[in-house]
Amino acid sequence: MAGNSFGKIFVVTSWGESHGKALGVVVDGCPAGIKITTEDIQREVDRRRPSGSKITTARQETDQVEILSGIFEDTTTGMPISMLVYNQDQHSKDYSSLKNVYRPGHADFTYDMKYGIRDYRGGGRSSGRETVSRVMAGAVAKKVLDQSKIKIFGHTIQVGNIQAEKFDHKEIEKNLMRCADKVAAEKMIKYVEKLRDEGDSSGAILEIIVKNMPVGLGEPCFDKLPADLAKAIFSIPTIKGVSFGTGFQGAGMKGSENNDVFQTIKGKVKTKTNHAGGTLGGISSGEDLVIQIAVKPPSSIAKKQQTVDSKKKKVEIEIRGRHDACLAPRVIPVAESMVAMTLVDHLLRSQAIKNTF
Amino acid sequence: MAGNSFGKIFVVTSWGESHGKALGVVVDGCPAGIKITTEDIQREVDRRRPSGSKITTARQETDQVEILSGIFEDTTTGMPISMLVYNQDQHSKDYSSLKNVYRPGHADFTYDMKYGIRDYRGGGRSSGRETVSRVMAGAVAKKVLDQSKIKIFGHTIQVGNIQAEKFDHKEIEKNLMRCADKVAAEKMIKYVEKLRDEGDSSGAILEIIVKNMPVGLGEPCFDKLPADLAKAIFSIPTIKGVSFGTGFQGAGMKGSENNDVFQTIKGKVKTKTNHAGGTLGGISSGEDLVIQIAVKPPSSIAKKQQTVDSKKKKVEIEIRGRHDACLAPRVIPVAESMVAMTLVDHLLRSQAIKNTF
Amino acid sequence: MAGNSFGKIFVVTSWGESHGKALGVVVDGCPAGIKITTEDIQREVDRRRPSGSKITTARQETDQVEILSGIFEDTTTGMPISMLVYNQDQHSKDYSSLKNVYRPGHADFTYDMKYGIRDYRGGGRSSGRETVSRVMAGAVAKKVLDQSKIKIFGHTIQVGNIQAEKFDHKEIEKNLMRCADKVAAEKMIKYVEKLRDEGDSSGAILEIIVKNMPVGLGEPCFDKLPADLAKAIFSIPTIKGVSFGTGFQGAGMKGSENNDVFQTIKGKVKTKTNHAGGTLGGISSGEDLVIQIAVKPPSSIAKKQQTVDSKKKKVEIEIRGRHDACLAPRVIPVAESMVAMTLVDHLLRSQAIKNTF
Amino acid sequence: MAGNSFGKIFVVTSWGESHGKALGVVVDGCPAGIKITTEDIQREVDRRRPSGSKITTARQETDQVEILSGIFEDTTTGMPISMLVYNQDQHSKDYSSLKNVYRPGHADFTYDMKYGIRDYRGGGRSSGRETVSRVMAGAVAKKVLDQSKIKIFGHTIQVGNIQAEKFDHKEIEKNLMRCADKVAAEKMIKYVEKLRDEGDSSGAILEIIVKNMPVGLGEPCFDKLPADLAKAIFSIPTIKGVSFGTGFQGAGMKGSENNDVFQTIKGKVKTKTNHAGGTLGGISSGEDLVIQIAVKPPSSIAKKQQTVDSKKKKVEIEIRGRHDACLAPRVIPVAESMVAMTLVDHLLRSQAIKNTF
Repeated sequence: MAGNSFGKIFVVTSWGESHGKALGVVVDGCPAGIKITTEDIQREVDRRRPSGSKITTARQETDQVEILSGIFEDTTTGMPISMLVYNQDQHSKDYSSLKNVYRPGHADFTYDMKYGIRDYRGGGRSSGRETVSRVMAGAVAKKVLDQSKIKIFGHTIQVGNIQAEKFDHKEIEKNLMRCADKVAAEKMIKYVEKLRDEGDSSGAILEIIVKNMPVGLGEPCFDKLPADLAKAIFSIPTIKGVSFGTGFQGAGMKGSENNDVFQTIKGKVKTKTNHAGGTLGGISSGEDLVIQIAVKPPSSIAKKQQTVDSKKKKVEIEIRGRHDACLAPRVIPVAESMVAMTLVDHLLRSQAIKNTF
Repeated sequence: MAGNSFGKIFVVTSWGESHGKALGVVVDGCPAGIKITTEDIQREVDRRRPSGSKITTARQETDQVEILSGIFEDTTTGMPISMLVYNQDQHSKDYSSLKNVYRPGHADFTYDMKYGIRDYRGGGRSSGRETVSRVMAGAVAKKVLDQSKIKIFGHTIQVGNIQAEKFDHKEIEKNLMRCADKVAAEKMIKYVEKLRDEGDSSGAILEIIVKNMPVGLGEPCFDKLPADLAKAIFSIPTIKGVSFGTGFQGAGMKGSENNDVFQTIKGKVKTKTNHAGGTLGGISSGEDLVIQIAVKPPSSIAKKQQTVDSKKKKVEIEIRGRHDACLAPRVIPVAESMVAMTLVDHLLRSQAIKNTF
Repeated sequence: MAGNSFGKIFVVTSWGESHGKALGVVVDGCPAGIKITTEDIQREVDRRRPSGSKITTARQETDQVEILSGIFEDTTTGMPISMLVYNQDQHSKDYSSLKNVYRPGHADFTYDMKYGIRDYRGGGRSSGRETVSRVMAGAVAKKVLDQSKIKIFGHTIQVGNIQAEKFDHKEIEKNLMRCADKVAAEKMIKYVEKLRDEGDSSGAILEIIVKNMPVGLGEPCFDKLPADLAKAIFSIPTIKGVSFGTGFQGAGMKGSENNDVFQTIKGKVKTKTNHAGGTLGGISSGEDLVIQIAVKPPSSIAKKQQTVDSKKKKVEIEIRGRHDACLAPRVIPVAESMVAMTLVDHLLRSQAIKNTF
Repeated sequence: MAGNSFGKIFVVTSWGESHGKALGVVVDGCPAGIKITTEDIQREVDRRRPSGSKITTARQETDQVEILSGIFEDTTTGMPISMLVYNQDQHSKDYSSLKNVYRPGHADFTYDMKYGIRDYRGGGRSSGRETVSRVMAGAVAKKVLDQSKIKIFGHTIQVGNIQAEKFDHKEIEKNLMRCADKVAAEKMIKYVEKLRDEGDSSGAILEIIVKNMPVGLGEPCFDKLPADLAKAIFSIPTIKGVSFGTGFQGAGMKGSENNDVFQTIKGKVKTKTNHAGGTLGGISSGEDLVIQIAVKPPSSIAKKQQTVDSKKKKVEIEIRGRHDACLAPRVIPVAESMVAMTLVDHLLRSQAIKNTF
């Protein structure tokens, strides 16, 4: 039972390999009547593209989005929305030398064991390139959320030991790290460039903030909103941790400190603090969603590494070519997309069970 | 679209309220031919019961498990397994005073907003008591895993600032904290008892280790093993963080440090380290699964708290009665159960797509 | 991947064996705020019970319905509704002689082959007794439909060669055949009694009519309303055919005869005829649903039959005991239940995808 | 909750509109290691194309299949298989005059009511053209079945009052009706041509026979094999009836006639007759599957018809252009495809729940 579909009502099916003919996605369950143009999708796909700097890979795909169905006269019809980008910059030869090698930190070994066959060109489907499908679907989801003024901000809060210390959302798209703290961003960039020059890479921590959240999203007992968000985010390659609100810090806190006290502000029930990160009992409370995400250092590094091949023989490799030295900035639009898809799915799930008859 | 079922092939449906007639579970998709007795289930349910100490609630349920279907002559038949426990110690009157109050940190407010009606007796279905259903299903899942020698250990690794410093699995069930470090356990207990006496509570961090993992569990791109495990664990009340392997520490690490180098040991491909925590590309690698889980401090505290009621009026509350001061030890069998259910589901999913025809 | 759950939003999970401890059902996804009492469920379960006549089995279960969760103060809370009936009249000994015999027309052989183990007592879960779970869930679904004035009528239209020639819905519950034509009913009863006396049984054709249908139920391209209704009905034991509107007669018709011409009546678009049976393109048109259902003659007959046992040896059997001579009247409440569940599921699915944000 | 995916393990997602850019399908869950070429898919798609005779539409699409993912070096990799055909012969102008008209027997009215927007070009997604996606997926499914020698034959058994009287599978692909009785085929063709000349159309009955069925497919209690097959077939446009084995004839039969007596032949348990049509208790018995399918007369006829438009005003229409006069021959590959997909899904479901650990 393969796992290439996500969501229960807003259902996203992703397909395509890194160096296959194309990558694409089918979005089934998008309500009819939403205005969407190819440009809306293209804009988000462009955010995911490498910047061409030392931080991200130099692979230059134009990634031209094509919408093949489900949108008629710039409006969704309720029919499945099929979108794709054709691969242009395939460079299959780059990878033939790695055909039988299990790269450390990569999925070569596990795919070989699981499927008995592997499209070794660029990691095939285990490549981060697969996420272009998610960003196309996420762009559709964001258009749905726009109608309710729900807004998602992703930004880098830590690289190495450098932490962002302020949040100015207008800074995010201005620097290569997508960090909302201009000063910290500069330090992060220098740090990553230095690692890159050493043939190495860096981990990072991201944060997703969602503003204008409605109350009532999340379906206990198993499909709690944080549960489905965590699944969505952990499905992105290289993610190693997810937490909400005070997260792991909560271990050192007392109930009296951590509880968010209710109060009535302008006729609305709100909490004084938001240690919970936006949900209570697995259901959104109307406070901002606040999610932290740990991103591992990229496994593809130029430094020499020991490993084995598919015959179980020792080999030594140096991974040359186009690779990201820190994934944070490129994971951000992907993580935003997964959050957007999850929220739309839960908006629809929430209205599905209303007693309106 | 309600969310009371978990899993795709090994499907667990949970039902019941804290102070309703009974709580139960239906397990559909358990293979036929597995030996299971009521005692197997009862043993795990007993592990979830409060210890009667200062650390956990004094609620004394006998929680007698009844198997109603799916098991014939102590063997699974492939038919749905229905199990329940009747509630005995209901004390409904305890809660009438809280009927219209939104307790801080609880789901009262969000359930009221979402459903427009709420079984206020003991939190209804948002109560931790719901997890008894999960433990019954988890006990079935563990019997399936037993056949493959897959073994799950849950233990407490941090309470307040006290951290476990060694792992002796034989210690776990010997102390009230389920901590694998005897010395740390004693400190944790003292710390929690002190908070309890102050009318307060403590957060904690747990760890789940799974030994004898097969290679190949996990279904990219969305149903990666860590994604489904994270969802499973975040569906448990009070969980605020989940990470794998080096987790959030990875932010400060370099690729060259974090990559797990492959080597061949006794004819098997193994990694030298296990920073990844047991998966590569979302698929189990055969290394131990290592999962960290952040548990928030219980919201039900005796200390006076400010809040509002359903009329949005300010009220002050002191939550009396039977409550846990630290949830770690009771969450452990629940987290183990969710992990067990997820692993069995993925074992079955994994065999579902084999080309054996 | 077992199949004991039905529906996508209004999800019904059935469990229990003919001669196990109990049979029950969990309904997840029922909207909150619907008034339901135990009597509402009991009334439908009683309709399914044998009449004690020569036509249906003499098995006398009181089938006392218990609601265990999901309904608080006679109102649904949005939580899963768990219901069961305990078995009382188990007579397990009746069946021990059949333990290793493959009864013709029964599922003994296929269950044995599929699962390798079989609860042989009364057919275990392949027994028609399993349908008591469906009727409990169907009773909940009917309460939801009541709110929209949607009304389901099931009746017998053919037994042997005897056909009902008129439809007076008030007659249906007055005769043992649940036939809406009083005169035909008497003939049918005589015919079935005669077969019964000969140790034989009869097939039948039922019809389900649904009045006050809303426009817009059904989700192309695969989950068309007739597709999901057909699946629902074919999941009932002994069903061998399902058709809509002109059904198999359509083979002999021309497009110009069969097309239902649109007209505007009192400001509403209606069709002049209803050959389509209530759907167009798989979506309800607002016309009555009209479904025909073929029910096979019961396989349990007193006449001597040749067969083999699990050792593949020839044996001769005469099935004694309590058995239905014609299943039509008892299948009716079951078929109504399956239709009701399908319609509620599609009502909810229909509202799930609305763009209401 | 839209319905454009079919299957639980072998999951087929269909997309595309009659006159959109392309139509396609994603098959997720196909086992790795199966040999498939573009030609395998093209061959089945070609079978679905109109013959250019008076019987079927003159629309001339080349329908060139492209495989975009999931197949590497002519072998499935376990990754999602994405396939499409671009539309070439779009003739959008043909349809502008029908933009606001509700054609009798078509889905114009119900789509308009349900979605509030409609791609009116050629019926958009409600067009029979959507079935090209099914045939591509069905071709993949047939390759899986080939490995187990499971073979599906679809043929026309009745048109008007003309019935096939013998079954010679070698005749099927030789005549325009796909009738296995050469003599009956000629009569059917003449009958349909005559109706076509009158501007009319004809209904039909098909039969699907599946040989070399394994024992054990089908998942009671809801996902019985006939239930899932019926759903699959009823999801095809224009289907109005489905029955198995003796089907509706069973109403007039006695249990003693209809029961299939078990016997042991060459060490295998087989039934003497096959009135059940290949399943017992919803599980395949190893006998041939025998399914009858009622196909309605095409609604698009040249004859003048009364109807209303979207303003509810009376209009008169004559549907000109390219239309099928009898759908039987073109529905056959589609029905075979749906049966193939259902069988593969159940083969995989069947192995999913085995206790092989």
